[in-house]
Amino acid sequence: MSTTFHGIIGYTITPFSHDGEQLDLPALGKSIDRLIAGGVHAIAPLGSTGEGAYLSDLEWQQVAEFSLAHIAKRVPTIVSVSDLTTAGAIRRAHFAQAHGADAVMVLPAAYWKLSEAEIIQHYRAIGASIDVPIMLYNNPATSGTDMSVELILKIVREVDNVTMVKESTGDIQRMHKLQMLGEGQVPFYNGCNPLALEAFVAGASGWCTAAANLIPDLNQQLYQAVLRNDLKTAKAVFYRQLPLLDFILKGGLPATIKAGLAMTGLEVGEPRRPVFALDQSGQDYLKALLQTLR
Amino acid sequence: MSTTFHGIIGYTITPFSHDGEQLDLPALGKSIDRLIAGGVHAIAPLGSTGEGAYLSDLEWQQVAEFSLAHIAKRVPTIVSVSDLTTAGAIRRAHFAQAHGADAVMVLPAAYWKLSEAEIIQHYRAIGASIDVPIMLYNNPATSGTDMSVELILKIVREVDNVTMVKESTGDIQRMHKLQMLGEGQVPFYNGCNPLALEAFVAGASGWCTAAANLIPDLNQQLYQAVLRNDLKTAKAVFYRQLPLLDFILKGGLPATIKAGLAMTGLEVGEPRRPVFALDQSGQDYLKALLQTLR
Amino acid sequence: MSTTFHGIIGYTITPFSHDGEQLDLPALGKSIDRLIAGGVHAIAPLGSTGEGAYLSDLEWQQVAEFSLAHIAKRVPTIVSVSDLTTAGAIRRAHFAQAHGADAVMVLPAAYWKLSEAEIIQHYRAIGASIDVPIMLYNNPATSGTDMSVELILKIVREVDNVTMVKESTGDIQRMHKLQMLGEGQVPFYNGCNPLALEAFVAGASGWCTAAANLIPDLNQQLYQAVLRNDLKTAKAVFYRQLPLLDFILKGGLPATIKAGLAMTGLEVGEPRRPVFALDQSGQDYLKALLQTLR
Amino acid sequence: MSTTFHGIIGYTITPFSHDGEQLDLPALGKSIDRLIAGGVHAIAPLGSTGEGAYLSDLEWQQVAEFSLAHIAKRVPTIVSVSDLTTAGAIRRAHFAQAHGADAVMVLPAAYWKLSEAEIIQHYRAIGASIDVPIMLYNNPATSGTDMSVELILKIVREVDNVTMVKESTGDIQRMHKLQMLGEGQVPFYNGCNPLALEAFVAGASGWCTAAANLIPDLNQQLYQAVLRNDLKTAKAVFYRQLPLLDFILKGGLPATIKAGLAMTGLEVGEPRRPVFALDQSGQDYLKALLQTLR
Repeated sequence: MSTTFHGIIGYTITPFSHDGEQLDLPALGKSIDRLIAGGVHAIAPLGSTGEGAYLSDLEWQQVAEFSLAHIAKRVPTIVSVSDLTTAGAIRRAHFAQAHGADAVMVLPAAYWKLSEAEIIQHYRAIGASIDVPIMLYNNPATSGTDMSVELILKIVREVDNVTMVKESTGDIQRMHKLQMLGEGQVPFYNGCNPLALEAFVAGASGWCTAAANLIPDLNQQLYQAVLRNDLKTAKAVFYRQLPLLDFILKGGLPATIKAGLAMTGLEVGEPRRPVFALDQSGQDYLKALLQTLR
Repeated sequence: MSTTFHGIIGYTITPFSHDGEQLDLPALGKSIDRLIAGGVHAIAPLGSTGEGAYLSDLEWQQVAEFSLAHIAKRVPTIVSVSDLTTAGAIRRAHFAQAHGADAVMVLPAAYWKLSEAEIIQHYRAIGASIDVPIMLYNNPATSGTDMSVELILKIVREVDNVTMVKESTGDIQRMHKLQMLGEGQVPFYNGCNPLALEAFVAGASGWCTAAANLIPDLNQQLYQAVLRNDLKTAKAVFYRQLPLLDFILKGGLPATIKAGLAMTGLEVGEPRRPVFALDQSGQDYLKALLQTLR
Repeated sequence: MSTTFHGIIGYTITPFSHDGEQLDLPALGKSIDRLIAGGVHAIAPLGSTGEGAYLSDLEWQQVAEFSLAHIAKRVPTIVSVSDLTTAGAIRRAHFAQAHGADAVMVLPAAYWKLSEAEIIQHYRAIGASIDVPIMLYNNPATSGTDMSVELILKIVREVDNVTMVKESTGDIQRMHKLQMLGEGQVPFYNGCNPLALEAFVAGASGWCTAAANLIPDLNQQLYQAVLRNDLKTAKAVFYRQLPLLDFILKGGLPATIKAGLAMTGLEVGEPRRPVFALDQSGQDYLKALLQTLR
Repeated sequence: MSTTFHGIIGYTITPFSHDGEQLDLPALGKSIDRLIAGGVHAIAPLGSTGEGAYLSDLEWQQVAEFSLAHIAKRVPTIVSVSDLTTAGAIRRAHFAQAHGADAVMVLPAAYWKLSEAEIIQHYRAIGASIDVPIMLYNNPATSGTDMSVELILKIVREVDNVTMVKESTGDIQRMHKLQMLGEGQVPFYNGCNPLALEAFVAGASGWCTAAANLIPDLNQQLYQAVLRNDLKTAKAVFYRQLPLLDFILKGGLPATIKAGLAMTGLEVGEPRRPVFALDQSGQDYLKALLQTLR
């Protein structure tokens, strides 16, 4: 099963009305258009940045359906379909495929810690229920489940349509191992913004990032410099954007990206409680940062 | 606000049909009757053991309503109302209170890591929406959020109806600190089964445990020995039941308790996927263990 | 091989001259006399509190020889002989035995992380070189090596004169495991001061503590209450001394115990650099604490 | 104070006689000649690889004096002078300077955890006692002390001759922070072999490595490719040598490097006990690896 995902893969936020209760789909449409105008090579709705975990099932479906329709194949779309239950993840994967997703992303979210056998079965069941490729996503900080590289490759071998791996532990040695043990045949993607340069250097096929909502040009320049084998430029543009990459990670992606979009003219509401909007000092810092990066 | 929670607080499982799809409320009723027959001082539905996190909103309501009606005030009931969103937790707290809960339990479940201010606001909002007492629940292994003793006591002081604390980190020094900094005025409860003896020794008011589904007599004997100031007996009955307490913790509470109930004649189905039922070797071990504890 | 170690095992400090350069053996003699007057059941020179790791080989020998001569069998003595090399630990163990030590204590200090086989061989080589019993000491915070209960019991089984275990991880469940897997036949000792009560409750034979330099009566009262099966009193005297136990752990044993001895009339100098003496605010706090505990 | 350290900085092992008791200085001389023949830009005796922590004071002095005399300024030399006491580290720093060291390296080794003030004072006292530059070395895995980037830069600012930083945590983000907060003015060096590529990419001035004893050409090729701005070649030669870099880290540097030297005709004895020599299966693996890298 081939896949064309590479380069800058932009995450969407999920806009809410001012009180946080209603979805604001028109604003979502505008944010998608911005990402595409910024040159992203693919779009990933309903991920961590998209507060997928904080939506009701109905809201999740509305966002998925709207996003796919609005992107309309202008770029490939990979929809996050993670759910605490296997049955729920299957339902979402089905829905995403039915509405045109080019791939789905699956994080093995856990309440009770999962054994390796439980994780494998989770991916196997989801894989068997759809035809599109699956990007396996490892992010113990949000999922509570840390998959070793050995386990990840076992799943890739055993489940046909798990064809891509997104790694967000922040440990670059995991990517070395994916490259070596996967013998260069398993495309992996970086989900840890401050590792953007090193991940490309280590062989990542792409960078899954919400930063593309705010600084798409700098994201592109980094990727293009790596493609051109120009390490000095890659290093320079990486360090230029690193303060922003650090800030959005530490400040929380929904809060900081939503604040940054508002600063640049697109009102998308606040994150859902208990997550707070970016506070005033954070906003001041972000505004100054964005100005230096223009 | 006074509360009468003390002693052995038994967790209910949530029985499913064989395929895991349907709730089996009659079986739930029988398991509740068993807990009460076993002498528990209170019952806690929809906690970790009760797979509350794996239920749809509708299922959650059905289990809450049925449990409260079936317990029918024979013992006090404390319903876990945790939800990833503050709005969702408030809806559940309301529902529980409306259907007769004597208290609610709140774990600050998180996808995005929560700041202290966000956690406080979460408890404040829930507290303001109900009249019954709240048991604050700290369990970083399942929630992803670790609340320091200082933060816990700040919440207890600032939110009127947060009157009880359940501690499940497994670090007995947290209980020392609750006792000392709380000046003996903040009742705390142990949620880590293998610390049952030490927690009572350190001053815990109660022990929240799913073990009461399987070995209620031994649980009672431990509590009674502590009340009688009989350390030697407390130690002896603790070490007698410790292998089971260790086993249900390591094997996962829903899987092990459901298996144990089936062995003793009450069929309650399996945990919901991706969580597996207890495997054969685990069942053999548990069966042998239960026989030695008769 | 039988051993009589039980109860309160007091650690000595190592007094230095004002500039930290010279040993002050007369002051060491006075501190030993105080410990014995305070009722300790055994004395342990050259441990963590005794800054054994910060002494030259010659100084180490002088302290060992003087301590053993001065204690003069009034109570049993257990000398810490840990060294980074196996050869060095053997030399020290020999020296201690030759000068009358009743037992030696061995922490597997490490620069390079040690494998289980390396640790076992370390204990085996030391054990083969002496006749007195060895207390195996597990304290990953200072040694950099964490020995599992399974490994500890393997060493106890394989090395004849490793007959006692001192556990300082601060995890009470390690003691449960020592009790259960050791089938009550392997005497274990608590080295984590804030766990004093729980360790005795879990079955510890003794408490290795530097607190006996400052509050020997309270230490004794706790032990005696446990022996009398009087949990309520044990709990009360434990909580009474817990603020001091917490303080000496957090403030560092050499700094806090040396400061406390000076406050009570015995000048013993400061810890060796880079370790600082207790600062003024720490001294004020400690002085107030000691006054409330008189 | 300027310094010329850059590129590949090779660590020496410390050869012992077959029984591990005696130093084998002639073999040390040969290993130094090999490093220089292999093109290292500097040599670092008595580091972790050199088992500095396992030597007596006299042995340490013999190795330091011999190494400096034998290197004889063919390349700059940086001698590790770490000691648990400040006084001991000062003595060693003095000795190294007196015998011609171009710089000294200081790891804040700790038995009792050190506060930031204690660490700063340790560096300040050593710095005041010598004139040559100090390379501050952060390696919590061996020292038990983790210095934050903020603390490191504070020391660099406050102690004149702390002019270089060696970072071995394995977290590439520490190097980003050194680069950004140090405003590109604080040269930093990588001590974590598997991060060799990423560290250079992030701006490291040099790579402190024992691998130069075995694969000096590959180490050089990596460095030269980075200097030439040729990312593709750098990546290729990095992945080529990564299995060896991983192996020597996991197998322990003294054991693996000594085994590798013996395989290539230079007998240097075994590590000192309790550290084991490389076992047979490790030797087989290493031999095969070295053959593929010829």
